[in-house]
Amino acid sequence: MYYYMDFATVIRRIEAAGPRHRLDIGDPDLPPPPELLEALGRVGDMRYGPPEGLQAFREAVASIFGVDPGEVVAVAGGRHGLAALMWIFRKRRLLTTRPYYPGYFEIANVFDIPLGFVETGDGWVPQFAERGVYVVNYPNNPTGAVLPRHKVKELVDVAEFIISDEIYRDISFVEFTSPLELSPNVAVVYSFSKVFSVPGLRLGVVIAPRDVAREVARFNKATINVPPTHAQRAIASVIDILPKRREEVSAAYRRRAELAERLLRLPFVKPGGAFYLFPRVSEGCFDKALAAGVSVLPGELYGRGGHVRIALVEPEEQLAEAFSVLNEVC
Amino acid sequence: MYYYMDFATVIRRIEAAGPRHRLDIGDPDLPPPPELLEALGRVGDMRYGPPEGLQAFREAVASIFGVDPGEVVAVAGGRHGLAALMWIFRKRRLLTTRPYYPGYFEIANVFDIPLGFVETGDGWVPQFAERGVYVVNYPNNPTGAVLPRHKVKELVDVAEFIISDEIYRDISFVEFTSPLELSPNVAVVYSFSKVFSVPGLRLGVVIAPRDVAREVARFNKATINVPPTHAQRAIASVIDILPKRREEVSAAYRRRAELAERLLRLPFVKPGGAFYLFPRVSEGCFDKALAAGVSVLPGELYGRGGHVRIALVEPEEQLAEAFSVLNEVC
Repeated sequence: MYYYMDFATVIRRIEAAGPRHRLDIGDPDLPPPPELLEALGRVGDMRYGPPEGLQAFREAVASIFGVDPGEVVAVAGGRHGLAALMWIFRKRRLLTTRPYYPGYFEIANVFDIPLGFVETGDGWVPQFAERGVYVVNYPNNPTGAVLPRHKVKELVDVAEFIISDEIYRDISFVEFTSPLELSPNVAVVYSFSKVFSVPGLRLGVVIAPRDVAREVARFNKATINVPPTHAQRAIASVIDILPKRREEVSAAYRRRAELAERLLRLPFVKPGGAFYLFPRVSEGCFDKALAAGVSVLPGELYGRGGHVRIALVEPEEQLAEAFSVLNEVC
Repeated sequence: MYYYMDFATVIRRIEAAGPRHRLDIGDPDLPPPPELLEALGRVGDMRYGPPEGLQAFREAVASIFGVDPGEVVAVAGGRHGLAALMWIFRKRRLLTTRPYYPGYFEIANVFDIPLGFVETGDGWVPQFAERGVYVVNYPNNPTGAVLPRHKVKELVDVAEFIISDEIYRDISFVEFTSPLELSPNVAVVYSFSKVFSVPGLRLGVVIAPRDVAREVARFNKATINVPPTHAQRAIASVIDILPKRREEVSAAYRRRAELAERLLRLPFVKPGGAFYLFPRVSEGCFDKALAAGVSVLPGELYGRGGHVRIALVEPEEQLAEAFSVLNEVC
């Protein structure tokens, strides 16, 4: 049950091997926007702020999402928002789809929260039939799946509440529908880590009905006192670059996914978004690829053996090289 | 039981009043060291790091504290370390001294952790007699008390384990003894917020036996994935300025405490460290002071009515003005 330890063990093995291509962790290789780095260098105000986030930051995010600032709470990265929401809904029937993002499992393990799974079929699309509070992640890590709108409708119809992990919503190659468009009983978790390539900053937001937003702020106060204020100030001051950045980042990862479709000769579902592939592989793929200089992550970490997760976090030329290694050994 | 809401209400009242002197939140007014601001501006690497913190950062902190890097875990501010440790020890008998830092109460409330209290007597010094896991905070918020060494010995003798919140250890006007000097069964929580005046950065550390340190890293992974890496890089690169900065900051706050001893005509225990006073006051002091342009915090927030907490976070001249208001109305 101690999933994180397994993950840490895998990462230690990878680091010890020192592979030429690191396609394991989803650490974006595109450089952060220079405007954001400059803005971070300009922030001299390092004082506390309110636990729900600075008003200027909440307003900036609200304007981008078309919601009310009262529904926006700053959090210390997407994981922090997920932990807050899973904690808040811990006494309900919590469900997620499998393969799953291991973070949900790590949160559930540490906080002793029971977590049920809904299996996914062809194209990694699940049947949503059970009642419960769903934690869903589209565009999906590890599969790249994006739900078509009628599936989001099916989810909304059976869910008592939805924790919608939209960390990859900016990286989408097909139409993306947030459950928030179809239902008010939704908390969206969003982060600036992937779109701005700044996971080390730890800044994200939860967008939720006001009563849930207040509980998230209370979780903030208990666990981190206040979300990082200098990061809020910097991101609020450059929020205008987000739409263009989204397009650039989405286009760059789409080109990589298309490259994979041309060159990678392993069976995988064409991703609709995010920057992962989750191909079916032969036994021993993880070890053989690592020995041949390419690190990926074993599907077992995502609740589905017989697969590996490939993170598309290298430029195309290098990816092409890594794909030919994977073609050979997997 | 929803303490944070009370705190938020008090803060909202203060902000609505817009007092001339804000001596409520412990938000350091001394500017952050320019070396640190420059270092933050230089960090361009915003990638993930390990959940226990970057090795370079852990080594830098270990060298300052004279411990092993394997005993150091980075956390997203002191509160985050406290939340991790209180969660880890939630099934033990957790005790703290009263008056208490309200953060312990907020953590206990959100995580449904029972928290017992040990009352303090003259000079805010408690009798440590009960067995249990202690959460202690010296130099103390809100009283400024520092335990003499024989009292730390008494604590170490009865405690099964000690969570030693040493957020203010750099601001000490008398000899400070950490329980870690007397026992291995101690986890120290330390933050850079107060010494470097950067609470908005959210960076601290836990120094603990390796098995506890591993559990803190697991809590990190579940709640924030990784502690902020850019802040770790920046602080590791300027760690050498810490000893001198400690002295400067300690001297500045000591002068303010001495000013209070000369000018403030309310009964209070002379602080041994930190930057707070916790005087006994007449009824209605909080309201009357606020109406007269000075915000302090009601002792009820710290579990002790009939007192207010004064944060010494203004330059001496302004403090002198605030003290004379308090002398008049309290």
